[in-house]
Amino acid sequence: MLVRHLDPETFVHAYNVDLQMLYPWEGVVSPPFGAAWAVLAPGESTKPHAHQECETFFVLRGRGRMAIGAESSVLEPGSVTFHRPFDNHVLTNLSESEDLVFLTVYWEDRGQWSEGETAGEAAAGDAPAVKRVMVTAAPPTPNGDLHLGHLAGPYLSADVHTRFLRLRGVDARFVCGTDDNSIYVKAQGQSMGLGPEAAADHFADAITETLEAAGIDLAVFPRPNASPYHRQLVQEFFSRLYERGELEEREAPAPYCETCESYLFESHIGGRCPYCDGGVVGNTCEDCGRVNDAVNLADATCTACGSKPTTRPYRRLIFPLSRHAAVLREHYRSVSLTPRLHALVESLLADGLPDVAVTHPADWGIEVPLPGYEDQRIYVWLEMAPRYFAYARHLQDLTGPDGGWQDGWRSAFKADDARVVQFFGFDNSFYYAALLPALWKAFDPEIRLPSALVTNEFYRLDGLKFSTSRDHRILGRDLVGQEPLDAVRFFLAHTCPERQETNFTLDTFHALENGELREGWLGWLHDLDRRLEDAQGGEVPATGDWTSEHRRFYHRLQALLGEAQEAYQVPGFSPQRATRTMAELVREARRFAAGERHWRGVSTRGEEQRTAFALELLAAKVLGLMAAPVMPGFAERLWRGLGYAAGPGDGAWTGEVLEWVPAGAVVHLRGDLIPGLG
Amino acid sequence: MLVRHLDPETFVHAYNVDLQMLYPWEGVVSPPFGAAWAVLAPGESTKPHAHQECETFFVLRGRGRMAIGAESSVLEPGSVTFHRPFDNHVLTNLSESEDLVFLTVYWEDRGQWSEGETAGEAAAGDAPAVKRVMVTAAPPTPNGDLHLGHLAGPYLSADVHTRFLRLRGVDARFVCGTDDNSIYVKAQGQSMGLGPEAAADHFADAITETLEAAGIDLAVFPRPNASPYHRQLVQEFFSRLYERGELEEREAPAPYCETCESYLFESHIGGRCPYCDGGVVGNTCEDCGRVNDAVNLADATCTACGSKPTTRPYRRLIFPLSRHAAVLREHYRSVSLTPRLHALVESLLADGLPDVAVTHPADWGIEVPLPGYEDQRIYVWLEMAPRYFAYARHLQDLTGPDGGWQDGWRSAFKADDARVVQFFGFDNSFYYAALLPALWKAFDPEIRLPSALVTNEFYRLDGLKFSTSRDHRILGRDLVGQEPLDAVRFFLAHTCPERQETNFTLDTFHALENGELREGWLGWLHDLDRRLEDAQGGEVPATGDWTSEHRRFYHRLQALLGEAQEAYQVPGFSPQRATRTMAELVREARRFAAGERHWRGVSTRGEEQRTAFALELLAAKVLGLMAAPVMPGFAERLWRGLGYAAGPGDGAWTGEVLEWVPAGAVVHLRGDLIPGLG
Repeated sequence: MLVRHLDPETFVHAYNVDLQMLYPWEGVVSPPFGAAWAVLAPGESTKPHAHQECETFFVLRGRGRMAIGAESSVLEPGSVTFHRPFDNHVLTNLSESEDLVFLTVYWEDRGQWSEGETAGEAAAGDAPAVKRVMVTAAPPTPNGDLHLGHLAGPYLSADVHTRFLRLRGVDARFVCGTDDNSIYVKAQGQSMGLGPEAAADHFADAITETLEAAGIDLAVFPRPNASPYHRQLVQEFFSRLYERGELEEREAPAPYCETCESYLFESHIGGRCPYCDGGVVGNTCEDCGRVNDAVNLADATCTACGSKPTTRPYRRLIFPLSRHAAVLREHYRSVSLTPRLHALVESLLADGLPDVAVTHPADWGIEVPLPGYEDQRIYVWLEMAPRYFAYARHLQDLTGPDGGWQDGWRSAFKADDARVVQFFGFDNSFYYAALLPALWKAFDPEIRLPSALVTNEFYRLDGLKFSTSRDHRILGRDLVGQEPLDAVRFFLAHTCPERQETNFTLDTFHALENGELREGWLGWLHDLDRRLEDAQGGEVPATGDWTSEHRRFYHRLQALLGEAQEAYQVPGFSPQRATRTMAELVREARRFAAGERHWRGVSTRGEEQRTAFALELLAAKVLGLMAAPVMPGFAERLWRGLGYAAGPGDGAWTGEVLEWVPAGAVVHLRGDLIPGLG
Repeated sequence: MLVRHLDPETFVHAYNVDLQMLYPWEGVVSPPFGAAWAVLAPGESTKPHAHQECETFFVLRGRGRMAIGAESSVLEPGSVTFHRPFDNHVLTNLSESEDLVFLTVYWEDRGQWSEGETAGEAAAGDAPAVKRVMVTAAPPTPNGDLHLGHLAGPYLSADVHTRFLRLRGVDARFVCGTDDNSIYVKAQGQSMGLGPEAAADHFADAITETLEAAGIDLAVFPRPNASPYHRQLVQEFFSRLYERGELEEREAPAPYCETCESYLFESHIGGRCPYCDGGVVGNTCEDCGRVNDAVNLADATCTACGSKPTTRPYRRLIFPLSRHAAVLREHYRSVSLTPRLHALVESLLADGLPDVAVTHPADWGIEVPLPGYEDQRIYVWLEMAPRYFAYARHLQDLTGPDGGWQDGWRSAFKADDARVVQFFGFDNSFYYAALLPALWKAFDPEIRLPSALVTNEFYRLDGLKFSTSRDHRILGRDLVGQEPLDAVRFFLAHTCPERQETNFTLDTFHALENGELREGWLGWLHDLDRRLEDAQGGEVPATGDWTSEHRRFYHRLQALLGEAQEAYQVPGFSPQRATRTMAELVREARRFAAGERHWRGVSTRGEEQRTAFALELLAAKVLGLMAAPVMPGFAERLWRGLGYAAGPGDGAWTGEVLEWVPAGAVVHLRGDLIPGLG
């Protein structure tokens, strides 16, 4: 018999109440919560506080008032309160003579953390309060088609995360477009004997085809110069910054090539990074992610002629980023950042933020809407900020007046129930993590900045960097033309360069395709089909008796589903882990099937056999759900094979996910679950 | 503000109390427990009941008496009770006029289930109440040395489970011995021109050497005929069964070879199984696990001369197993069984249990201690039951008068805090799951039967059955002579034939050895050593600031530790899963390290870098703990490399396992963590 009584001898004082700690009960049990009797003296209040635990008070004796934020309520014996994580709460004893006695029970529920805005880390789209997410990836530059390195970088990841959010019932839209106004486009056009427009058109078409072929589900993919909104929004954005005094005209030395007779910036100039000493072309170092103003490059050369540049004074508009250090510091307290990016932004803050030139001497790009700047163009990385507003306008057109995106960019950047999530290669970090947030806040301090920034590292081919110029590359369209799309996407996710460079080889691709997908997954599903045909005429049975092995397997499915969810969420996003979790589910299901097939021969235990089949079919259904973000085709064919009318749809990963495959459904998993593999 | 008040309108009546369901709070939160106000009317009692949840009552008002079993206690406002799962409990309101009002909070804690004897499934050794576990494996027959198939079968598994239990603070002892009295030993001796004793001595020595070389840590490994206890205990056991009327003399037809002029049983006779039609030698079918009486074999032949046997009447002693059906049925309700074994025992019960001959016409084996049976010997599978009593006596000698095993077999088979766990190949199932439990209960109805039976399937070599006669085998001693022991044990565990046949090939062994262990594990640990040397002079730092990524990684370590624990426990035992969990830990640690290494360059964030190193070192420590049952050498070298004086010792996997590697310790992980691999 284990009994304790309310005992003032054991009180500890904290939060201005006397506490008798009850659970964990030392030496007896450590439940998934803590509990204590709490005694608040007459007229006293608890210390206002907020913590990460959920908490509930059960009032035993006395009379009090509980306040959370602006709300308050009177409590008496029998009253029960619930506080969400990070709710700042105060309880006051309203009596002048009697103690207020209550039981407090508190527990950690990480699922609830994301609801608290003060949680220190805004969840990126999977929190209950979030209804809409704009998922973006860095716009591809239309100076070439996309190779596997591009796909395995931001595009597949953004697509996978978007599909996951939709399964979770969120109206997530993956939006992107081409980066037509980059000077790389003009250079590529020149080398092909084309104007920049024609080069952009050519490669934008190729990119669009490749993204489609790779199953990247883009809601909108506008061409900036064809968009009815883009140019106007960019110029308005620029003008407003200027009007708000956020841009400064400044004359400063700029690199100049005396041979080519032109100012050098971006791809016109190469040298060594002033921060990490790595080789650099243009204003960003791919190695360390830091930016330079081209003047401070060591060993600078003109990329066109190889000359060593001089400097000449040049007058242009500057965005003094350093003014926004406090805003950025505040942003970094809540935004979800991949660890390398987290280190970079802390380093930027520690070292001082650079001022950024936002107009360049050029004739390709969007005109500066100010007199005296006719020979300059707006910097493409400034263009990027209002580009998101254009995306939102295109979404508005797409979804119509009742679509949730009806308020243009405000529906993404101002609504409480919306979030923006950005995917990009680490070499773009400065722009997405520092320049863009500062530009947006400079434009409108009420803007809600993106909630998550997800970087990727480089993807290599046979150990070397992808290179279009050396033709060391595999185009996305070529691989998905030759191999099953589900297998390609599975492999790219499995080897996603999410924290460090990873490598593609055809050998490892084929080994995983055959060993894991064909033999492991399809081998199991085809065998399940045969056994079910044999034992149940191919029909899903109702569950019967449960053995302890059945209970364990069911709980294992629950656990694996939770792991896949962690892997698809931001923060924690890891396509690699998501694919490993699926592979683990298949291994566990095969092991379960191997043990359970022996019920077949036991006359008195048909009920156990039925439960085993129902559980194995549930595992197949769960595999389909878990696979849907990465392998949507496979997921749909698998669910149809289980008797469903369609694949896992919007909201399929909400509520009771482990619902049985309906008894009586006819199962057909015999082939073509992954066309080309079986 | 979320508040509810005690409200009789919402009461539901159950267990003879009025309940106001509080948690889950519909639409608000689903905590990891349920809670309700409960009102028990004056003079009333709750319905006595037991359930799988833990439960705690907090008394708000009134006065009651709680009874659990024979114990009772008076409760008043402020009292708190805790009931374990399956505790049968009754609460009585002692007042004639006042309601007894209490809060009930209940939650599922599967870890606590194992403590309840009525839990439907006795845990095999990892439950808090268990102090001692005798772990056994089927005794090897000394008619040949052990090949990899033997090691990958019961021996490695029993060793791994024993080592895990010791880490969990249980006094677990792996005991085994040789099966000298098998007629296979006599046959092998004849074929070598030796007597059975000499053959047994020769191969028992070889087996002992191989088990030692494979790192199988046996507490005792007695030779039956050299043991001072074995023969005597067997004969006493046999006599007592006879005296208790458990053995019946019966004359029945037995197979007889007219050419060889001898009765045929065990290896003397071959044919087809009467149950599954598979090929059989002797009395057990390796395919389906059923036993036969040799008379009912189809297409029987004498294995010595190939003749078709006749039958002759033969008088011997029979153990009428069918008398013990009820005892076995009761046993199967609580013992942990692998699924195929579960199906087999249900099938045996459904089809009717066979009677089993326990004496055979032979001159090799233990004499029958009854007059008139001088030309017969005790059946080796009857000998197996008292063999466990001999193990216990040897343990008693080993551990001395204060060792916990001081009461001989009673310390294993009768003490409340002890368990017996058996590992064996599925082909031995009938004996371990049906014959032995019935024999033990026939000997002494007060015996506590083994709590878990863990079977394995066959291990194949290059896709074919291991075969000594065809020399299609790799001897255990040969592989561990050529390859690092840790790598061999890792591979055998990784491919353990735990639910179905698995396969050994040298190619897959080398692929896993190099890809997983050398590149993955050692590559990470060597790199960690270098980075720590570089950044911290090789010393373990104290933790500093935590990022959200750090918190996630810490929780991941907790989760993986829990998964490894599930994989090492019985039920759920899966060396395959244990090795996969370790491999996953290494992948997660590498990913973590890749993200965190960038703190190095941030002047203001040394605290984050320290936390990252502390966490990565903790991951290495956890890997050592998780690896210790499978790779004890690696685990010890790894822990020593982390600055500990020894490897993970008894009890290391209890209490707060995630204790930091002590700050200031000097780390040395540069090489020889797996000698031969690096």
